[in-house]
Amino acid sequence: ASLEKREPEQDAFSGDPIRHPALLVRNPKPFNAETPPSLLTDHFVTPNELFFVRNHLPVPSIDITEHKLSVEGLDGKKIELSVEDLKKKYKSVSFNSVIQCAGNRRNEMNDFKKVQGLMWEGTAISNARWTGVKLRDILIDAGIDVYDERIKHVQFEGADTDPEGTPYGASIPIEKARSNETIVAFEMNDQPIPPDHGSPLRLIAPGNVGARQVKWLKRVVVSEEESHSHWQRKDYRAFSPSVQLGEELDWDSVPSIQEYPIQCLVCVPAANTNIEKHDETIEVAGYAWSGGGRGVIRVEISLDGGKTWQSADLEQDKEQDIEHMWAWTIFRATVKIPEGADELQIIAKATDRSYNTQPETAAGIWNVRGLLHNAWHRVPIKVV
Amino acid sequence: ASLEKREPEQDAFSGDPIRHPALLVRNPKPFNAETPPSLLTDHFVTPNELFFVRNHLPVPSIDITEHKLSVEGLDGKKIELSVEDLKKKYKSVSFNSVIQCAGNRRNEMNDFKKVQGLMWEGTAISNARWTGVKLRDILIDAGIDVYDERIKHVQFEGADTDPEGTPYGASIPIEKARSNETIVAFEMNDQPIPPDHGSPLRLIAPGNVGARQVKWLKRVVVSEEESHSHWQRKDYRAFSPSVQLGEELDWDSVPSIQEYPIQCLVCVPAANTNIEKHDETIEVAGYAWSGGGRGVIRVEISLDGGKTWQSADLEQDKEQDIEHMWAWTIFRATVKIPEGADELQIIAKATDRSYNTQPETAAGIWNVRGLLHNAWHRVPIKVV
Ligand SMILES: [Mo]
Ligand SMILES: [Mo]
Repeated sequence: ASLEKREPEQDAFSGDPIRHPALLVRNPKPFNAETPPSLLTDHFVTPNELFFVRNHLPVPSIDITEHKLSVEGLDGKKIELSVEDLKKKYKSVSFNSVIQCAGNRRNEMNDFKKVQGLMWEGTAISNARWTGVKLRDILIDAGIDVYDERIKHVQFEGADTDPEGTPYGASIPIEKARSNETIVAFEMNDQPIPPDHGSPLRLIAPGNVGARQVKWLKRVVVSEEESHSHWQRKDYRAFSPSVQLGEELDWDSVPSIQEYPIQCLVCVPAANTNIEKHDETIEVAGYAWSGGGRGVIRVEISLDGGKTWQSADLEQDKEQDIEHMWAWTIFRATVKIPEGADELQIIAKATDRSYNTQPETAAGIWNVRGLLHNAWHRVPIKVV
Repeated sequence: ASLEKREPEQDAFSGDPIRHPALLVRNPKPFNAETPPSLLTDHFVTPNELFFVRNHLPVPSIDITEHKLSVEGLDGKKIELSVEDLKKKYKSVSFNSVIQCAGNRRNEMNDFKKVQGLMWEGTAISNARWTGVKLRDILIDAGIDVYDERIKHVQFEGADTDPEGTPYGASIPIEKARSNETIVAFEMNDQPIPPDHGSPLRLIAPGNVGARQVKWLKRVVVSEEESHSHWQRKDYRAFSPSVQLGEELDWDSVPSIQEYPIQCLVCVPAANTNIEKHDETIEVAGYAWSGGGRGVIRVEISLDGGKTWQSADLEQDKEQDIEHMWAWTIFRATVKIPEGADELQIIAKATDRSYNTQPETAAGIWNVRGLLHNAWHRVPIKVV
């Protein structure tokens, strides 16, 4: 009987696509998987099949030729657009932009003190080139005055639904929605967007957390308020460290996460790697990124707990400047193994264009849902 | 002879105004003074006479009725506007906005490790209501296309000059300059702007550091590049902690500071205050603020080094929302004195709307010029 009860839910995932075997699966249904750290820094633009996957629900089955995007104004008037309409009616733009799950690095926060959520390690983040059309062009074409002061948020719904038929939903502030950088994308790395990443349409709101960049985009509604979806109102909000696990959560007391704070992670070497003393140096590589288009201005490495620092070399997107940096920064540094060391901790931290930096530990940012963990990244290493 | 040599420079300050005796003077000429911490939290809007003063040069002597603002396009064409022209030609707006010196809290950074600069303690910051006209309206009226892609920065010059006649100068990115919030102000707290604060005109670029909000504003030039002023190119840039005092500084290797990172300070009680055990509680008050309009979403207090936190009550500007919060947040908390404590450290730290937080110590943010110190604020207290 218990088996029968579970079957319908399991069936919901039968349409999920085949995935690359290298992905590190954190949850099979819904599918959640991160990119192997050592592969992440191999590519400035993450290949589609290695791009981390964060699904909240089963991958919807969509006939691309039939798919329609509905766009609604405050007065309820709406237009419907096929993927072909989008391509034909508006000017396409392409740029690199990171998507990072708000729960990235939750596992480390859990090590600091127990939290609740999917135990992402540090690579629930990837960088792709997105091609699509500006959301503002679509809104204006739908007869919407994007400067109407009543409009506060633009709400989005995906074609993915829970067992009751409720779609995934989220919203972003109107200023972000009407910005030059927010697009409805139909291509990811010059390919049609793959099923796991929102085929055929995904909202790209660069610099915001992944949860607001709605996949399988089906409906856009301008509104006087935020989305009423579970994921906007009862999730993706980071509480004070004074709120403990098990307490009732006053979700309205904290704002929905939109822009990501400054983040950075050492991908190579992996924790607990044995480094040979006679190598004399260690090659360190990783990523850094900040929300809101705030470019990374430096990444620094310390082997002495933060007493002294060495600046890493930065690989950045040549098409973007530090005021509009949606792509990530790949950093590399050759660091000298200190004399006589047999255990080391590699620390990395980044600074963004507004001179925001990362906290040293999770002490001030710990939160029950384990969101937005961005403490200095610390990698223990053995010298043998 | 040495006296004769010094006289001309000293004379340059003879036109400086009379100041309120409560101001804590850090340097008399040019005049630099901060607000007494205990007075700062008394007022959500700082009274003009108590507003901190950061002058780089002597206060210029200006005939307000004769003062002209010159506004120049890329082609060198310019218009000139009197203060009366500004008031008559454009719509006025008023809002609260903080000005904070990029060197605020330098003294604490110097305690961590020696830095170079004026030893501001923690109140080189104030909040006032500014009235003026949008810079974008002026630019457009001057025939400038504010969306011209060649324009990268808008440069400003003040009427204050060094002994060689070079004016103070700075610039801000065009996107900030054409934003809704950047104004040329002529009133501060409903009074004509006082001489120390830029009479008759000051640029207000809310959310940016004080150094870019040019006082005694005289000249506006749109440009393909940043201001060439000393203060834009050879100052107000925060280096990596790996750059040591005495090293030659590669100023072009770091971007000019524009938006301020998240900041917070306990104003009351003062460090080393004796608190009476039988009071049982301590009343803590201070300010928190972040750049870029990122509203403060919480301020937390710890008495145990950051192991546990208590959220403070926040007083905020009712006219502003967390996406456009130019005013500061005044926080207050009643904290219980722990049993048996005879020495305590009150720690305060804030989180902004993008979930950026402050670092625990200066270890990762220390820089030779002692800029943008925003580590957790720590106040030692004695319980007697
Ligand atoms: Mo996420
Ligand atoms: Mo300053």
